[in-house]
Amino acid sequence: MSLSTILGEIAQEMAARTDRGQVADYIPQLAAVDPDQFGISVCLADGTQQSAGDSATPFSIQSISKVFALALALGRLGDQLWSRVRREPSGLAFNSILQLESEQGIPRNPFVNAGAIVTTDAALGQRPPKEYLAELLTFLRSAAGDEDIHIDRAVARSETETGHRNFALAHFLKAHGNLTNPPELTLGAYFHQCAIAMSVEQLARAGRFLAGLQHLIARERVRRINALMLTCGHYDASGDFAFRVGLPGKSGVGGGILAIAPGKASIAVWSPGLTQQGNSRLGTEALELLTRRTGWSIFG
Amino acid sequence: MSLSTILGEIAQEMAARTDRGQVADYIPQLAAVDPDQFGISVCLADGTQQSAGDSATPFSIQSISKVFALALALGRLGDQLWSRVRREPSGLAFNSILQLESEQGIPRNPFVNAGAIVTTDAALGQRPPKEYLAELLTFLRSAAGDEDIHIDRAVARSETETGHRNFALAHFLKAHGNLTNPPELTLGAYFHQCAIAMSVEQLARAGRFLAGLQHLIARERVRRINALMLTCGHYDASGDFAFRVGLPGKSGVGGGILAIAPGKASIAVWSPGLTQQGNSRLGTEALELLTRRTGWSIFG
Amino acid sequence: MSLSTILGEIAQEMAARTDRGQVADYIPQLAAVDPDQFGISVCLADGTQQSAGDSATPFSIQSISKVFALALALGRLGDQLWSRVRREPSGLAFNSILQLESEQGIPRNPFVNAGAIVTTDAALGQRPPKEYLAELLTFLRSAAGDEDIHIDRAVARSETETGHRNFALAHFLKAHGNLTNPPELTLGAYFHQCAIAMSVEQLARAGRFLAGLQHLIARERVRRINALMLTCGHYDASGDFAFRVGLPGKSGVGGGILAIAPGKASIAVWSPGLTQQGNSRLGTEALELLTRRTGWSIFG
Amino acid sequence: MSLSTILGEIAQEMAARTDRGQVADYIPQLAAVDPDQFGISVCLADGTQQSAGDSATPFSIQSISKVFALALALGRLGDQLWSRVRREPSGLAFNSILQLESEQGIPRNPFVNAGAIVTTDAALGQRPPKEYLAELLTFLRSAAGDEDIHIDRAVARSETETGHRNFALAHFLKAHGNLTNPPELTLGAYFHQCAIAMSVEQLARAGRFLAGLQHLIARERVRRINALMLTCGHYDASGDFAFRVGLPGKSGVGGGILAIAPGKASIAVWSPGLTQQGNSRLGTEALELLTRRTGWSIFG
Repeated sequence: MSLSTILGEIAQEMAARTDRGQVADYIPQLAAVDPDQFGISVCLADGTQQSAGDSATPFSIQSISKVFALALALGRLGDQLWSRVRREPSGLAFNSILQLESEQGIPRNPFVNAGAIVTTDAALGQRPPKEYLAELLTFLRSAAGDEDIHIDRAVARSETETGHRNFALAHFLKAHGNLTNPPELTLGAYFHQCAIAMSVEQLARAGRFLAGLQHLIARERVRRINALMLTCGHYDASGDFAFRVGLPGKSGVGGGILAIAPGKASIAVWSPGLTQQGNSRLGTEALELLTRRTGWSIFG
Repeated sequence: MSLSTILGEIAQEMAARTDRGQVADYIPQLAAVDPDQFGISVCLADGTQQSAGDSATPFSIQSISKVFALALALGRLGDQLWSRVRREPSGLAFNSILQLESEQGIPRNPFVNAGAIVTTDAALGQRPPKEYLAELLTFLRSAAGDEDIHIDRAVARSETETGHRNFALAHFLKAHGNLTNPPELTLGAYFHQCAIAMSVEQLARAGRFLAGLQHLIARERVRRINALMLTCGHYDASGDFAFRVGLPGKSGVGGGILAIAPGKASIAVWSPGLTQQGNSRLGTEALELLTRRTGWSIFG
Repeated sequence: MSLSTILGEIAQEMAARTDRGQVADYIPQLAAVDPDQFGISVCLADGTQQSAGDSATPFSIQSISKVFALALALGRLGDQLWSRVRREPSGLAFNSILQLESEQGIPRNPFVNAGAIVTTDAALGQRPPKEYLAELLTFLRSAAGDEDIHIDRAVARSETETGHRNFALAHFLKAHGNLTNPPELTLGAYFHQCAIAMSVEQLARAGRFLAGLQHLIARERVRRINALMLTCGHYDASGDFAFRVGLPGKSGVGGGILAIAPGKASIAVWSPGLTQQGNSRLGTEALELLTRRTGWSIFG
Repeated sequence: MSLSTILGEIAQEMAARTDRGQVADYIPQLAAVDPDQFGISVCLADGTQQSAGDSATPFSIQSISKVFALALALGRLGDQLWSRVRREPSGLAFNSILQLESEQGIPRNPFVNAGAIVTTDAALGQRPPKEYLAELLTFLRSAAGDEDIHIDRAVARSETETGHRNFALAHFLKAHGNLTNPPELTLGAYFHQCAIAMSVEQLARAGRFLAGLQHLIARERVRRINALMLTCGHYDASGDFAFRVGLPGKSGVGGGILAIAPGKASIAVWSPGLTQQGNSRLGTEALELLTRRTGWSIFG
């Protein structure tokens, strides 16, 4: 069966689903998103791209931005980053503060919120946030081959106003000496990177470098980012995602997931309804169907 | 470079290492093992097997047995097993009891001790332990194509005498209704399966079904066991193992590691010295060198 | 108003109450107790004793026995006991195992189950459990001035059969080297001491030495046991008990509470219905009324 | 022996001690305090006051202010306060954030930092912080009968600059809806109340209402504040303080302790060196000697 047929079937099956999960509602901009949307897009090794559903609609990539921030932070600091953040699954929710207290302010990995704040702080360095955000957008636009990728300012503003839990994490990190910038400054950059809007078509293209279909960073580094996505990319549901989908992936609370089939495909999927753990419900199911039908699982 | 050359070089490099970690010392039989030993063996898709170092010396496979117990338990119960044990990294040490208390006696995964005890209890069913252990040995001997695989009774006896922490886990599981047999019975089976002795040559052959080089169980099930090994196989160092080695793997406190390159190779390595987390120190390093030189990482 | 009138009124008020909490149901002997019972008894400094309600009915003293076991353990070991158990509120449930793991097998205090098992192990020493239990009964009978105090063997047997959580604690303590006897042996003594049956009349008399109305142990030791009862005697409801009642007290899951007004009175109360935290619901309320009406709070 | 003689002897013994603990060093103003100082002062039921040592030297009362803030908050809200903060020992360090996460932003008691921030937020209400601080100073000056009690602005400023851990707590509380004011506002009031400077002579007089020697608030409320001080006033060393000293007490990181012997005495002691748990080392020892020599323990 052709990939195009598979994607079309999956989009149809997903359209028929009624148990779509709950849309994130902590800020009005996300709460207002129509839960009935679904989009999927796949970039292949042969350079082609196949899509189905609402594949051109931009959505808030939220935590998927952590993958790109990690790539930039590693570019600036290299392996020094790993003295400030570890590479282990946390076994806890994405916004938990528990381990920070018992582990001296060193977050478990770059994808839980605490670790992503440290990563952004590292990628930011001593530059003004604007400069860092410009670099990030340039990276994304270049990776996606599309200039039309922007930050949604209203989303960034809402995140800042309601982000008390992230402020708690940032102040805790600062108290442990694991934040070089003032909490407000690092969080400013963090909230803006989370507010980047992209479509699955743009996102799948932007992820090609992780699938080895585009050379932007060293292969060794790509492998390691993929390993981190596999073990930590879905927080305390990472084990289940690996078990069911069998691909490295990173989810965002906007309902997007970027998944990587190394050497084969970069895949982006989007459906706004979330599971309890904050990952796209239909997005995960669509990816499970996709790997079952394509045999793309990295596990055999 | 040929695989045989690569393995020879790795064995030589490992022989020269002085920082070998600490041999497990909680029972005399493990404490007495010579720390200077190192063996590696690889079974390939073409049916050949290459080895280097002390590849024919039997060692106590310990927690590597959890992989085979899981295969048997899934064979008996199928997906019903997942109502008794989850599929998530714990973020805690292999013998931690913390999550059992806050998570109502449902262990995080089949590879932490609590989860492995549940898995063994499930694989055991209402049979006498002897019958289950006979089935397990038959499975291993058939998978390895070698009748000379046995349980080291002295090791099993020592484990039983000193295994108070595992008794604590088993009674806790029983208190939560997540153990069908009396704690002593299930632990009897558990301690005996951990005391199976194999060489890396035998172990690499026994793992071929997980690499898809031998058909013993359904491919879907193989994929899932590999996913679990990747996310949970090295306890609270699983993230680091994925990051550095890039293969599903399961370690044992006897110093062995079974690693799987799906479609390509089944790999067994052994060196008795352990890291703080209880995984073979040189074994991990040898696998890191091997995947770097062969390009077998599943992450690109 | 005379104490006799106060007690009579309280018994009447309690008889009218319908929200009596749930009777412990983990063993049949406790589950079968009639929840409508209530008894209270008070021994005064002048040597008199006043009682009301079902004051002569024996009930299972359960964890109240921990106070007397502590007195015996201190008698045998003196301050050496404090190297094996601490003197701090745990902030957790009575049967929690969490802190044992993070605090190297040293329980927080002698009244949480883990700490009581250590205390019993210390009081037991190298003697056969029978000998220790005989000493404990002798102590209680002498303190109460009543030979008719016994162990309910059926209760002890049921506790042993269902006590998997206590077995887990004991094995965990053993694994950390904080149990001198085999877990079964110490638990045998522990389950039997919990199964002692007494009436509130007997219990109030047995508690006189803690109120300074009878000299059995050094005054300094009495003070310290009272301090421990105040801070730890009601587990994770100890703060609330101090806040509402204002007296050192120790509860048991059989529905009894022993409370001490130093220099003034030894008080025993019993009503089988429990709160969520496992303390007698009406017992606590009766004590709150009593201290309000007598002004016996130690807090002013 | 007269109280005056006892205090003189204690001051002499303390002057001879070399193991004085470490002075708090997280802000320069506290780090600069001479560790060799010691002062003690006692107000008795007969209206007299006895002091010894550096009893007129002002020091930063820090967390002792939480007692007075609690009195004001209860005055404003009454028992409604208990829906926002509990009355249980936490079993954790004074600045821990762990329980906030697992207990939905409701702090364990008003004396751990999180609970004190909530209490201050409640006492503050919708007023400007200045107004609340003026009320607090008026209360303290009136209770102590001394107009010369002030806020040390330099200490308040330093606390604000370095108080990232308290900012983390406040934002976490805000995220859970348990802070009515913006975190900066409540913390402004909190840091200023902690920066109040008093001598032990002033502090002992200010504590008389808790000993029942002065009527400022209802007796029932006094009893409850004393109960809270006993169970929670020294954080995770509260059990030990009750065990050794036997009085309700509240410590501050400036080295002060206020202790209450209900009906008998209000006691203030000060020595800047701290234990690991952040309580005055010699202060605690001096109180232990005092209660042993006076027989003031509330436990018999």
